[in-house]
Amino acid sequence: MNRTGVTAPIGFKAAGVSCGLKKNDRKDLALLVSDIDANAAGIFTTNIVKGHSLMWTREKIKNGTAKAVVINSGCANACVGIRGDKDAEEMAKFAAMLAGCEPEKVMLGSTGVIGYPLDMEKIKTGIKKAFDQLSADGAADCAQAIMTTDTFPKQASKTFELGGKTVTIGGMAKGSGMIHPNMATMISVLTTDAGISVELLQRALRTVADKSFNRISVDGDTSVCDKVLILANGMAGNTPITWEGTEYSIFVNALLEVSVALSKMLARDGEGATKLIEIRVENCSDKKNAHLILNAVAKSPLVKTAVFGKDANWGRIFTAAGYSGAVFDPNKTDIYLGDILVCKNGTAYPFDEEKALEILNRDEVTIVIDLKDGKVCDRMWTCDLTYDYIKINGSYRT
Amino acid sequence: MNRTGVTAPIGFKAAGVSCGLKKNDRKDLALLVSDIDANAAGIFTTNIVKGHSLMWTREKIKNGTAKAVVINSGCANACVGIRGDKDAEEMAKFAAMLAGCEPEKVMLGSTGVIGYPLDMEKIKTGIKKAFDQLSADGAADCAQAIMTTDTFPKQASKTFELGGKTVTIGGMAKGSGMIHPNMATMISVLTTDAGISVELLQRALRTVADKSFNRISVDGDTSVCDKVLILANGMAGNTPITWEGTEYSIFVNALLEVSVALSKMLARDGEGATKLIEIRVENCSDKKNAHLILNAVAKSPLVKTAVFGKDANWGRIFTAAGYSGAVFDPNKTDIYLGDILVCKNGTAYPFDEEKALEILNRDEVTIVIDLKDGKVCDRMWTCDLTYDYIKINGSYRT
Repeated sequence: MNRTGVTAPIGFKAAGVSCGLKKNDRKDLALLVSDIDANAAGIFTTNIVKGHSLMWTREKIKNGTAKAVVINSGCANACVGIRGDKDAEEMAKFAAMLAGCEPEKVMLGSTGVIGYPLDMEKIKTGIKKAFDQLSADGAADCAQAIMTTDTFPKQASKTFELGGKTVTIGGMAKGSGMIHPNMATMISVLTTDAGISVELLQRALRTVADKSFNRISVDGDTSVCDKVLILANGMAGNTPITWEGTEYSIFVNALLEVSVALSKMLARDGEGATKLIEIRVENCSDKKNAHLILNAVAKSPLVKTAVFGKDANWGRIFTAAGYSGAVFDPNKTDIYLGDILVCKNGTAYPFDEEKALEILNRDEVTIVIDLKDGKVCDRMWTCDLTYDYIKINGSYRT
Repeated sequence: MNRTGVTAPIGFKAAGVSCGLKKNDRKDLALLVSDIDANAAGIFTTNIVKGHSLMWTREKIKNGTAKAVVINSGCANACVGIRGDKDAEEMAKFAAMLAGCEPEKVMLGSTGVIGYPLDMEKIKTGIKKAFDQLSADGAADCAQAIMTTDTFPKQASKTFELGGKTVTIGGMAKGSGMIHPNMATMISVLTTDAGISVELLQRALRTVADKSFNRISVDGDTSVCDKVLILANGMAGNTPITWEGTEYSIFVNALLEVSVALSKMLARDGEGATKLIEIRVENCSDKKNAHLILNAVAKSPLVKTAVFGKDANWGRIFTAAGYSGAVFDPNKTDIYLGDILVCKNGTAYPFDEEKALEILNRDEVTIVIDLKDGKVCDRMWTCDLTYDYIKINGSYRT
């Protein structure tokens, strides 16, 4: 019973099938269904250009109720005009018929190349097939079917006590390239059997996303189809959370744990990545400055190639912080690679190159920038920049 | 008499020598001397972290007079504490002694790896050697000596009529990686024999930089040692320009021509680059929006890898514009690759893949984003992102 992913909570079934949108029979249609109507919340890309499937979901989720989620990979259903909107609607209607619910309760996602219309015959065949295979053991297939250039499916879950009941939060995510704060090409679907009001569900998701999904960067590019959705069906039987008390805090902390786990998997699986990089800003004067520095360092191709090359070139980290737009005193700044001090008060600090190499050889590299100027700490995850990133992205469409 | 570069104008001599800061006897010390005191102006990196040699120059150029410029490559003289400031001063004093001028009239530059002190014995030996070789034919050597990962020296010049006199503007630049608006790791030195007041020289440089050096991006990283300097010695004998009349306009246009030529060379020689990419935003509502879009597209690793892969993946261009923060109507946006329309009113437009491939096979690729929403047009240059960028930057320090 070590179930994980979106079917870990009670009352969720899932499937992932192949319908021919991707080559070589790879899974490309994911379905998630809750046994009963679930409270639902979502966060969407801030990109001014938005995909048609995303637009549908962003609109319908305002009702606060969802029963099913259908996501296809292999085609973004973006920038194809009116047809894209009609296809999204048809996709929702077809799934709703099979789920026995209103189309408004079907949330959609499409990820893949932009500018090509969906093949609706394939989509419908896929949805039909997915409903046939729907199962409480379908989470892994479902997580597989939303992948684009991901090299492994991403799932997580956590079970905990809430108001005397055992509740579970599960989730899946896809990402890899085009990842940067504000949702990137990332799609994540979270599920829980906890009872919680729509309003607090949305608040919890926003709070958590800003410390997890919005804290990862692969290449600074953000996509037009990105979202994170959460469905809460209340089937664990806890007294629904309706105010920000202890139980809400417990729920948020558990949701954060699942979301951070998924986010770190996303960063680690950045296109071509060989390493997860955790960047920490410590003792900063305020949140805005901390965020500017994290962003600049996480996006810097020079920092990311240096980590790939196992080169303790801390000057690039300092330089990125310097041009970030953040206000700080460079003469008070310390920089650490792992636990090794490499720059003290803005000046080179003698360090053991052997030990630095040992740290850079690890799967996970931590960079700490200590500003000694306040109390704000924040962190962000990214990955190294490698030959394979170029390989993957130099020929994506072809 | 087809002289180009910094010694093209009358009264400038230059040299470039090797003093052992770089491996394999590559040239690493550049010297430029004006026969007489020149009016001088400069623009410097906005990075909050600044190199010690740059700090010296930024301070001393405020006097408006320069006689010599000394630039070393192979070591940035940055982030080494008080010692870095002392070394810069010593470098200026030593060169001043040989040039027969005050140290305040010697402008400095240091480019290379951060966090290591200058080897002052080598620097002094180099400066001495450079003075011995100083020549009106030394521009090419000088341009060579400021290179870091550049694959070719960058020089340009233009001769034109000004107030009945023949005047010349010359220039050299180095760049390659760490290049982005606000000077990057770029160093450029411009010279002219035109007579022009310090105030107007500074104004002309600022105007021109914002349309040339601040319009190139290689990887979005900016360095702590970046600058563009201009020395005007007035030896052409024109009546000095002291107000913004026709002659000022002629001077600015010529300076722009030289600066754009150098800037395009810098973008073309971006680390690992195989192509120059010109991005144009047309018919935009205002300057700010145009600039946001240009920046986002020029920095997008997904756009840059697509161009490398000769993949007409315009969705990435549109996506980058979308997340740029610019306000525009995606449903009115057209996108062109070269002269081929690939996206009309935000929707995929059928195009000839063969013709697109032909355009993407060229050395220079133009991307046009037509917003059909105003009258502002702007442009920016970048390069593709390739395997060699990773190779060069994964092992720079070692």
